[in-house]
Amino acid sequence: MSRVRVHNFAISLDGFGTGEGQSQEQPFGHAGERLHEWFFKTRTFRSMQGKPDGGNGVDEKFASSWERGIGAEIMGRNKFGWQRGPWKDYEWNGWWGPNPPFHTPVFVLTHHPRPSVEMEGGTTFHFLDASPEEALRRAKEAAGGLDVRLGGGVSLIREFLARDLVDDMHVVVAPILLGRGERLWDGQEGLEERFRIESTSSPSGVTHLTFTRK
Amino acid sequence: MSRVRVHNFAISLDGFGTGEGQSQEQPFGHAGERLHEWFFKTRTFRSMQGKPDGGNGVDEKFASSWERGIGAEIMGRNKFGWQRGPWKDYEWNGWWGPNPPFHTPVFVLTHHPRPSVEMEGGTTFHFLDASPEEALRRAKEAAGGLDVRLGGGVSLIREFLARDLVDDMHVVVAPILLGRGERLWDGQEGLEERFRIESTSSPSGVTHLTFTRK
Repeated sequence: MSRVRVHNFAISLDGFGTGEGQSQEQPFGHAGERLHEWFFKTRTFRSMQGKPDGGNGVDEKFASSWERGIGAEIMGRNKFGWQRGPWKDYEWNGWWGPNPPFHTPVFVLTHHPRPSVEMEGGTTFHFLDASPEEALRRAKEAAGGLDVRLGGGVSLIREFLARDLVDDMHVVVAPILLGRGERLWDGQEGLEERFRIESTSSPSGVTHLTFTRK
Repeated sequence: MSRVRVHNFAISLDGFGTGEGQSQEQPFGHAGERLHEWFFKTRTFRSMQGKPDGGNGVDEKFASSWERGIGAEIMGRNKFGWQRGPWKDYEWNGWWGPNPPFHTPVFVLTHHPRPSVEMEGGTTFHFLDASPEEALRRAKEAAGGLDVRLGGGVSLIREFLARDLVDDMHVVVAPILLGRGERLWDGQEGLEERFRIESTSSPSGVTHLTFTRK
């Protein structure tokens, strides 16, 4: 059965999945790269950069699960880019360059649809103005029996959790306090009733939380 | 040198150190006992109940540090009791019965001072209308060279952190989402610049965070 999965989603100790003030230069606002330093050291990330090094410990074990068995991704518009409102520019196609790391169809939820964009390496961005349920139906269809990954950001994951559409979720807690930004846990009282939660601390300082639907 | 320490302070995954609706029956409001289930299973807690059993794993190792080398505690009024405003009743003396587990002077911060109360077993409650700095001066004096423990609740710890008066802090993250209550981390942006933070996950499901002043 096709599952809906979240991977490598990093938050601060105070629960912020992104900081304030997203811009083209700062996708995570004032958080900068601090939520993802653990990830940059993994073999999974280094190999995306064409580098043969990178850690192979517990952070890598979690990081590397993100791609296996995934046939499509759904992401929110702010994970794709910093522009708001009607698109002024179709030239800029996300933060990942010409060959994004997804290598599958990616459904970008936005109230401002635009033509699909086929990138190198098998990633195609489709822009959908749709409910979570409808987006999931489309993504599952595109995934051809494989799983669907929810790529974030914060509000997308919150909404899918609230509608009980998530099967597996991996959240990484970074040992920093951002103080402001978007909180992942808002409105999620009692989530433990629907998920089995495990915690794994890493020598890198982060804590991996896994949520498995009961 | 006398240190200021926080121990066994439990919060939910979403950062709440207590729920909504404190009452005499529910010191932690709608959180009930869920933040402290890990603690109830430790040898430290069981021996307070006169029971010889209780776990001796990593939760116990953290739990049992709370008493060693402590000469006084400071707590907020809501950790002492549920009453607000002027005291209507001097008869009720905290949630711990006639022989509280502190066995030291305990300074209760309140805008409504009342006479000190000497309990069995060496605990004396003193009621102070004082700034954190002044309370700390009094507590250190009473501690006779030993350390001072900050007992909570949330707002007390937040205030001492904001004034940079904390040396060591142990926070326990319980795998539940309370959704509402008092957040420990509000206003603590950048705390990692002042503390070395370590994370230790326990088989019980909780995560122990330790903050050591740099």
